This record gives sequence, structure tokens and C-alpha cells, in this order.
Amino acid sequence: MDVPAVKQFLAGLQHTIVACLEQIDSKAFRRDEWARPEGGGGVTQLLEDGNVFERAGVNFSHVVGANLPPSASAGRPELAGRSFQAMGVSLVLHPRNPYVPTVHMNVRCFLAEMTGARPVWWFGGGMDLTPYYPFAEDARHFHRACRDALAPFGADRYPRYKSWCDEYFFLKHRAEPRGVGGIFFDDLSEPDFSTCFELVKRVGSNFLPAYVPIVERRKDWAYGDGERAFQAYRRGRYVEFNLVYDRGTLFGLQSGGRTESILVSLPPRVEWRYDWKPEPGSPEEKLYTEFLVPRDWAG
Amino acid sequence: MDVPAVKQFLAGLQHTIVACLEQIDSKAFRRDEWARPEGGGGVTQLLEDGNVFERAGVNFSHVVGANLPPSASAGRPELAGRSFQAMGVSLVLHPRNPYVPTVHMNVRCFLAEMTGARPVWWFGGGMDLTPYYPFAEDARHFHRACRDALAPFGADRYPRYKSWCDEYFFLKHRAEPRGVGGIFFDDLSEPDFSTCFELVKRVGSNFLPAYVPIVERRKDWAYGDGERAFQAYRRGRYVEFNLVYDRGTLFGLQSGGRTESILVSLPPRVEWRYDWKPEPGSPEEKLYTEFLVPRDWAG
Repeated sequence: MDVPAVKQFLAGLQHTIVACLEQIDSKAFRRDEWARPEGGGGVTQLLEDGNVFERAGVNFSHVVGANLPPSASAGRPELAGRSFQAMGVSLVLHPRNPYVPTVHMNVRCFLAEMTGARPVWWFGGGMDLTPYYPFAEDARHFHRACRDALAPFGADRYPRYKSWCDEYFFLKHRAEPRGVGGIFFDDLSEPDFSTCFELVKRVGSNFLPAYVPIVERRKDWAYGDGERAFQAYRRGRYVEFNLVYDRGTLFGLQSGGRTESILVSLPPRVEWRYDWKPEPGSPEEKLYTEFLVPRDWAG
Repeated sequence: MDVPAVKQFLAGLQHTIVACLEQIDSKAFRRDEWARPEGGGGVTQLLEDGNVFERAGVNFSHVVGANLPPSASAGRPELAGRSFQAMGVSLVLHPRNPYVPTVHMNVRCFLAEMTGARPVWWFGGGMDLTPYYPFAEDARHFHRACRDALAPFGADRYPRYKSWCDEYFFLKHRAEPRGVGGIFFDDLSEPDFSTCFELVKRVGSNFLPAYVPIVERRKDWAYGDGERAFQAYRRGRYVEFNLVYDRGTLFGLQSGGRTESILVSLPPRVEWRYDWKPEPGSPEEKLYTEFLVPRDWAG
């Protein structure tokens, strides 16, 4: 487990992604460095009211703590309470244009240590796409990029991480997936550090090719108040998922993380409406009937 | 424990409150009756885009279940898993005018049963006020109405329930109370059923006198986009509290409650902004420095 190498990769990934997004948006990100009283810190890069992105947050953090919160590892509850280091890059981009999907990407690495025991490390990560007015072409492109990123690690890797994503990004109280999914993985430590690190590097480095072509294709589509209202309504689901279910968010809040950095994932403008249902045959209904359903997008 | 009497009181309370709010708003509430597959059901009454209330939900529910979720009773974890009945009225009113505070009120009754054991029952409830542009006069009026409602049950009741409210409606990740508080209580079963029921009746029946005079005083105040933007921003805290901490919301979602009824508590339009801070000396700063701090409002 090579902490400096992972850290260097993550910092570079944040830099590369922000530079590309700034070019797309023609607006600079704000950059906040912060430190935690308990140890470690991070760099939050944030764009609000941009030309393309209404809110875009790209976080790098490296936090050190005395007690690993239970939300850190669903698969290894026996490690809760150990001292830990957690490093990661996490981003959520909320475009202004309702034809451009919201996207999330995260790569992370944990190290849990205890006197008298071997240190335990693992990686996690993934990316997933949340469209408002969806296009099959975009969902296919995103999933194929995910599949290609994982291809060197075996043909079963993408379908496994795709299913894991479908399970993870699911709103039980709505019986609804968050979007069209992507890939998700956690507790990755096999077969060895260098293979796992290589996989995580490929996931991180393939984020821009997975997402940017979709932005370029859709960002200048015309839209009106109706599309914005539906986007604001659907963004409510994003808030519900992140605050009720998301382990990264809960880990951040539980571990005394920096609240403003954790909650840059929340959308800028959101609406809740009671018992809203799309008109039969409308583009809004198509999102529910054709996209928020289990599908094989890469095939 | 007289289930029919409690149920009759709660249904009547919903009716009275909705009738009064309809008069204030000059707009009728929508009324939805619903049933749960597992047993029981409820009546959701809802107003959206009203004249005074941008979103107002008043729920009555009586749900029956085979397994009491752990969120139902913080003080009695040993009852988790028993069959149960839960009855209550719960309301959240989000006014349009930023000078009128948001308010929440809830009264509830649980009955946990198990073959071979005595049934266990308890009451809970409370009300709390969440201003945007606050007035000391309003906070004092609300707290005094709470104090007066509890006065027949001993002079120590209001300060205890006031402190409990301050503890409960607190956003740990913001180190910030939700608003100016009010009263909160749970696990109430002493000294006997009739005294507890009487207390809950007084809390429920004193909601309108606690809140309506504040609405009447403030609803016609002039406001602009700036006040609306601050209101939308502060409403984000309401969402964060309800989805991350609120036991009633979690109980509803965990017990297979009706999602649309549970989430009528969420505000209609919400905004998140990164690391926003009020201008020194502004009315917005006054909310933080003079109102979102522990204070004795009834004195």
C-alpha cells in the first residue's frame, strides 16, 4: 500500500478534471484548501452559476482519524473503531441544461491500522449518470466507457460492478434507481495492491471520456421553463438519495468531515411537489418507463 | 390505552387545523385517503401554491405493523420487533412570505404488543418554529403558548420539553439548531393514560393559537427576491435535518410508510450554495447571532 503514490494520483486527477471542466464552462473554479482538527484535510474545487454547470464540485481529501466510522466499510464491520486514513476524489456535476445529465464519480482508498495487527487497505469507487431528459445514445456511451475502463481486469468485472451500481444507487422509498447507473465497487483489495491501484487509476482517468462527449452533444440544446421545472423536481431525488442512503455522505458527516465540501454534491435549485406524475406519452414519462428500469446499456 | 378515543381526537385535530388554514389561505386543501398493504392507512391533506402557504401538509395516519422499527422509540430499544400500532397527526407548513416562519407540529401515540406480554403504549409530540427573518416577539409568543399548553402538568414540564426540543432539532454537521425551537417529548406514559392523553390533547389544541397570530402579523409584509433567496437557502437546512436526523421521517420510510405523505414536510423550492455567509450587520446575520442560539424565549 503506497500512500504517497495514491495521493499523487488523486491530486493529479482532480487537477486534470477541473482543468477540463473549466475549459468546457469558460469559468474558473474556486479553490479552497482546508484542514481537519483531527488530522488531514483536502482541497475543494467548486463552480457555481457557470455557463454549462449550475453547480460543480470536485473534492480531493485525505483525512486521518482515530476511529473508523461504520459507514466506511459495509463489508468489514470488524474494522470499525480502528485508526484510519481515507483518501479520495469525489465529484458531482449539476449542469444547467436539463438535456445534460448530472454525473457523479468517486475513487477512494482506505487504510485501517491497529497496533499489533497488519494494516488493512482497500479501494472503492465508481461513476453513475443521472439524466433528466435522457438519450439512449448517452447511456450507452457512458456504460461502454465504464466497460472499457474495466476491460483489462477481466470480462466479468464490468457486469459485476454495473449490478453493484444498480443495487447501490437505488431509492428504496421510491422503488426507483437514481439514474441509468454506471459502475460501483468497494472493498477492493484482491489480487494485490498494484492491480487494484491500476484499476482505480483507469476508472478515474476514464471519467472525462465517459462524460465529456455527452456534455458536448447536449449543452446547447434549447430548453424552457418546463424542462427546468422537471429538472428541479428530479433533483429532489438526488437530495433524497445523498442524505438518506449515500455512504460517502454519511461517512463524511459522521467522521467530522467538512460539511460544505461534503454537501457540494447537492443540487443548486430543487423543488418538491406532492405526488407528481408525468403525462402519459410525455418525454418526462419516458425517463421513468425506458430509463429508470434495469437495462443492459453496454451491449 | 383507549385507541378509539385517541384516534377520534387525532382525526378531529386534523380537521380543525385544516379548516383554519384553509380560511387563512383562501384555498382548499387536497385530501388523499390511503391504505397500507401491511395494515392501517391515513389521510394526507395538502396545499401547494397557496396564497399564504407555498406548501402545507397535514397528515393523519394510523398504521399497524408486524415489526416495530428501532427508530420508533429511542428510549425503548427492547420493543423493536414487536407488533405495533402508531397513530398521529403531523404537519409542516412552509409559508411563501419569508417573514412568516415555517412550523412543525406532531402528536403521536404508539402501542407495542407481544403475545404473553402486557401491551406497552406511549405518547410523543411537540412543535417547533423555524424563522427566516425572525422577530423576538414571534418566538416569545410561540414559546409562551407552548408553556401555557403544558402548565397544568407542572411548572417543570415546559423547561424540560423545551430543552429536549433544543437537543432534538439540532443539525450536528452544521452545529446549528433548526430554528428557535419549541417543545419536544417522547416515551410519555407516566403517571397514567388519561393524564398523558390530556397533555397531548392540549399540545395539539394549542398549535393554532401558538402559530396563527404569527402568520396574521407577518403574512402581508413586503419582500423581494433577496428575501426569497435567503428563505430558499435556509430551507436547505430543513431538508438536511429531516432526511438525515428526523426520527419521524426515518420511521415512516423504514416502516414502509407512504413516501409522498412522509415527504410533504420538505419545502417546495430549495437552494444550496457553497459556503454562504451572511453579511455582517445584515438581517440575515441576525438570524444566526440572535436566534439560532440557546435562549429562554418564554421568560
